[in-house]
Amino acid sequence: MSVTRLPKAIVFDVFGTVVDWRSSIIEEGRSWETEIGIPVDWARFADEWRRRYRPSLDRVRRGEIPWTKLDVLHRASLEELLLKFGIDGLSEEEKDHLNKVWHRLNPWPDAIAGLKRLRRNFTIAPLSNGNLSMLTALAKYSGLPWDAILSADLSKHYKPDRENYLMAAELLDLAAPQVMLVAAHLYDLNAARDLGFQTAFVSRPLENGARGKADTASVNDFEIVAHDFLDLAAQLEA
Amino acid sequence: MSVTRLPKAIVFDVFGTVVDWRSSIIEEGRSWETEIGIPVDWARFADEWRRRYRPSLDRVRRGEIPWTKLDVLHRASLEELLLKFGIDGLSEEEKDHLNKVWHRLNPWPDAIAGLKRLRRNFTIAPLSNGNLSMLTALAKYSGLPWDAILSADLSKHYKPDRENYLMAAELLDLAAPQVMLVAAHLYDLNAARDLGFQTAFVSRPLENGARGKADTASVNDFEIVAHDFLDLAAQLEA
Repeated sequence: MSVTRLPKAIVFDVFGTVVDWRSSIIEEGRSWETEIGIPVDWARFADEWRRRYRPSLDRVRRGEIPWTKLDVLHRASLEELLLKFGIDGLSEEEKDHLNKVWHRLNPWPDAIAGLKRLRRNFTIAPLSNGNLSMLTALAKYSGLPWDAILSADLSKHYKPDRENYLMAAELLDLAAPQVMLVAAHLYDLNAARDLGFQTAFVSRPLENGARGKADTASVNDFEIVAHDFLDLAAQLEA
Repeated sequence: MSVTRLPKAIVFDVFGTVVDWRSSIIEEGRSWETEIGIPVDWARFADEWRRRYRPSLDRVRRGEIPWTKLDVLHRASLEELLLKFGIDGLSEEEKDHLNKVWHRLNPWPDAIAGLKRLRRNFTIAPLSNGNLSMLTALAKYSGLPWDAILSADLSKHYKPDRENYLMAAELLDLAAPQVMLVAAHLYDLNAARDLGFQTAFVSRPLENGARGKADTASVNDFEIVAHDFLDLAAQLEA
């Protein structure tokens, strides 16, 4: 496939697509470990935290628990992890700080340069399962040059619920085909494509570490298949 | 009054407080007039448009009409004005372009420099009766360096409805006293103060033109009374 008509706005999945959550958590964990003096396998810690992500969203999506923002779901998972990894005695303030490592993640090396190019020609925003305060803090920390913040707490629905994508188009005052979703995850792109959005796959082979699995796509699966945000910008003539 | 505890986030009324809607509309109207060849008193045109603003919001606030975004309310007022000022024969595209002059307003001369200083120390966002797409386009046009866009269509309530302010605090994950509203309009500040927000009045004596009226405040009415955004930044130690 290819782009027949340029979108007006481009929205981005964030965790894994724009920022490298795994290596950021490992890096911060290791530097924090020397302070608390408890040895932890931070790669496993990061992976276990992320592994709880989809199941916790799915409990909200199935209506088993009422709407709960991602910061709060992360915190519940963190409590399990602290127990499992034998980290105890943390103060409330320390736990809150550790939970908000998700507000302090490093962008992939091409992300900011690519976003800056795209921003000249398009309205750009995250479209993430994160909550607005989290995505805003992350953008400030990482220097992500968004035009607006679109977050799951605006629709009170998690992707791949259709309400999440449709709310974004409505707030942007655009029809679905005028909006392109960029993501490194097929489930997300497939849901958006089914609603008429344009879609761009960007591969992030290291999202789950050198030995972890990552989604791949062929050139015909989406309007754009790119190997990073600079390639994406070039394909969108930005 | 004075600030006893610095806020975490600062939210801004936009039309009149951050941007000079009146002179921007006059300027664009005059340059457009030479193109269409119909003489119009653009100062009166701008004033009449703005005069319809509060009554149109109030119809939504009282539930006389369902939720309607500001772009659409502006467009209904514009249709009345075109009739009143004898401007006819415009295409749909021309009307839409004229209506979106509210997306192309110039900031007050101190606004961007002040916002850039404040952004270093605080999360900053509009808290406006505009809709998200309008505020996003305006920020892009004017170079307003917001961290996030908070708009009336997120709560589907217009200021001074309490839901508008409370939604902002909830999305920012802050308690009301951790948020400061900046505005040139007393009705807006009074509503926010009643809900526990910090408040800063910035005087914009020329909002309604040199002969128009503008709100004034004494130094004890709000946490901060400032004569522009640079003064505001200085009082907030930014």
